[in-house]
Amino acid sequence: MEEKGQYGVALVGCGIVGGGTARILTQDKTFLQERTGISLYLKYVTSRNYTNARSIGIPEDLYEQDYDKVLSDPDVFVVVELIGGLTDAKRIIIAALEAGKHVVTANKALMAHYGPELFALARKKNVTIGFEASCGGGIPIVKVITDGLLANKIEAMYGIVNGTCNHILTEMTEKGESYQQALKSAQEAGLAEADPTLDVTGMDSVHKLTILGSLAFGERVDLDSIPVTGIDTLDLYDIESGKELGYIMKLLAIGQKTDKGLALSVAPAFVHTVHPLARISGAFNAVSIYGHAVGHTMYMGRGAGSSPTASAVVSDIIATALGITSKAFETLNLWPDRTQKARQLAPEDLISRYYLRFMVKDRPGTVARISSILSSNGISITSLLQKEEAKDNIPLVMTTHEARAGAVTQALKEIENLEETVSAPIFIRIIEEHPESFL
Amino acid sequence: MEEKGQYGVALVGCGIVGGGTARILTQDKTFLQERTGISLYLKYVTSRNYTNARSIGIPEDLYEQDYDKVLSDPDVFVVVELIGGLTDAKRIIIAALEAGKHVVTANKALMAHYGPELFALARKKNVTIGFEASCGGGIPIVKVITDGLLANKIEAMYGIVNGTCNHILTEMTEKGESYQQALKSAQEAGLAEADPTLDVTGMDSVHKLTILGSLAFGERVDLDSIPVTGIDTLDLYDIESGKELGYIMKLLAIGQKTDKGLALSVAPAFVHTVHPLARISGAFNAVSIYGHAVGHTMYMGRGAGSSPTASAVVSDIIATALGITSKAFETLNLWPDRTQKARQLAPEDLISRYYLRFMVKDRPGTVARISSILSSNGISITSLLQKEEAKDNIPLVMTTHEARAGAVTQALKEIENLEETVSAPIFIRIIEEHPESFL
Repeated sequence: MEEKGQYGVALVGCGIVGGGTARILTQDKTFLQERTGISLYLKYVTSRNYTNARSIGIPEDLYEQDYDKVLSDPDVFVVVELIGGLTDAKRIIIAALEAGKHVVTANKALMAHYGPELFALARKKNVTIGFEASCGGGIPIVKVITDGLLANKIEAMYGIVNGTCNHILTEMTEKGESYQQALKSAQEAGLAEADPTLDVTGMDSVHKLTILGSLAFGERVDLDSIPVTGIDTLDLYDIESGKELGYIMKLLAIGQKTDKGLALSVAPAFVHTVHPLARISGAFNAVSIYGHAVGHTMYMGRGAGSSPTASAVVSDIIATALGITSKAFETLNLWPDRTQKARQLAPEDLISRYYLRFMVKDRPGTVARISSILSSNGISITSLLQKEEAKDNIPLVMTTHEARAGAVTQALKEIENLEETVSAPIFIRIIEEHPESFL
Repeated sequence: MEEKGQYGVALVGCGIVGGGTARILTQDKTFLQERTGISLYLKYVTSRNYTNARSIGIPEDLYEQDYDKVLSDPDVFVVVELIGGLTDAKRIIIAALEAGKHVVTANKALMAHYGPELFALARKKNVTIGFEASCGGGIPIVKVITDGLLANKIEAMYGIVNGTCNHILTEMTEKGESYQQALKSAQEAGLAEADPTLDVTGMDSVHKLTILGSLAFGERVDLDSIPVTGIDTLDLYDIESGKELGYIMKLLAIGQKTDKGLALSVAPAFVHTVHPLARISGAFNAVSIYGHAVGHTMYMGRGAGSSPTASAVVSDIIATALGITSKAFETLNLWPDRTQKARQLAPEDLISRYYLRFMVKDRPGTVARISSILSSNGISITSLLQKEEAKDNIPLVMTTHEARAGAVTQALKEIENLEETVSAPIFIRIIEEHPESFL
């Protein structure tokens, strides 16, 4: 298909990540060749228009709008899809696979929605799909799971996998900004999209948990089965109360293996200030993985941005050219076209600690009534925070020992119905350091 | 050589790591087979005696003292060397390679001393050497460098790569223990050897820097060319003074790419309390790697111990069986039998910030004289700490802006010669957050 050691790359999409990828492939061509012993060369850039490609110095003769021509060129060994979104990207990837081309993509939404069918098609066509760049930006987290930690039964995964949310939460925590203020400054700094919905609702994190969870636990995770809470409804008051109690708020993508199935969720959660994930600030991402042999490991890096994501894309292209991707893809039983649908824990059976906040009328006996309801549902309190305030409605903050989610839901419903309760109770998980279990 | 998908493993050494490896291979055989699609089976355990192997339930018929018999068995595809040390381990590995067996090892001393010649022999025999477990215990750091970050020009690496030293420094920092106290409690807790020399002198970290630096920078690092300072001469006073100034002491294995060559060193160094490496406590290891595209990434995990290290060993065995190891080893130009000897920065040309401590007689004008010597050598001071003490000899602590190491050495010599100086000045590097340079 290609001259020995010569690998033609077709790039579809030349925006932020595509541009970074094109720059590495062209500017660092010699360096990459010396380092890897193979020669990658950018053969085509296919994008809506040539503006961005031109602005970063891509020669005009690489620009090709006729995708069929790209696919029929035997020199092209990989199609790199970097346009994002679902419809066009899916069409482009399917056409590439059908044409017998390997694919590399950064498209988490697509891989989360259609991973199994795309992997099955790739397998049929004897090619591979590299998607390292879809999760954790430049952190080689897919490689870690599908290679470096292969000896492990993965017991849990806790990920800060959305840099926009982490930036906003860091600003709220450190500067006391409201959600709206922090979002606005993130947008001004180019760290949040004009329409930030996919990020702040947690859906982007759900995409990544779908992909990483499927690989790590070796069970096919269904996107729609993951309960999700975003950061867009958070109140600064809770971040600050949590901080007073020794906790930092993070949007966590969580997968925990339990006897009754996988517990998967995306939601804001509190971690202790001394937990390694508490220190992951701003636009950085990090994933903590706990294996039955390796114990706790953590992987940190920039989760987005042009060149960090392009780092993952180009490393994936190299691994594809070397045949490393196919060795793993062909043999390992981790990709979700080969694994069983995940057996998931019923949400009400989740065992967790919680931070609770109640807005109540300042009346004698309120704390006693609330405590009594919690207690009768088997929930015991570890701390209570009530400040003297000269207001009619006061916040009452509690943290709990481990409790069943179902019991917490029931108790909160009863408390919400109390005559002195003025608004729906707030509940946020507290994530304890996961126990290391060593073999 | 083996039945399709059947891979016989010969284990040489059945101590701490060997025992962990044997346990994974036997207890988790079915799990590994389901996960990886290949069947690894422990065929031989060769060790000085059968005591430990028996104690962890290894069947007696696997115990084989005749190494020639092991090597002549065509079912054995890999020899796993876990006896450590130089002489016997080298003989065992060479014999395995000569017999056409792949090798997996956790032996950092051996790889640091003889890596290039062993790699060259493996290449000649068309087999591979996996050595993931030699650095960073269970952290898949070799994979990260030789696969996940392949697109990057690595600009710097800062590693906490010795858990014993990190544990001792953490105890000194957090509990105010002296070095001797902390060493003693580490030994009692099984976190330091009875003879801790290799760890506390920094030599173990030098071994790991030799291995990882060679791969990361694509230049062959010579073990003897790395300046090394251990933690065994540290004074608690400096750890506590640094802490007052906002720094945490870590034993760092450092590689920095400069215009004038690689700056490599192992030495205790101060990092800001907010630096991610400052948070790596106890027996944990972590490596920060800065790439020209990916920016800052960090990898954390347990750097030693039976099952974390065995995690790396078994993952390496799997990658070897899958052929992933050979794809990388055959093609990439990173292994030090294929790279040029590193061009290294002359130690006196190193630019760094420093923490300095002088023990001086309490006399008027001393600070002025010391400051003047520093200044005349082009060294400017960023902070000064002198406490009122009712003693004749008082410590004077200073931190500096960036300065040439040669200038600092010269200034310290002049200061040591002052009549009021009572002992050799202490100097410790202060490591600023490495700048991220993105493509």
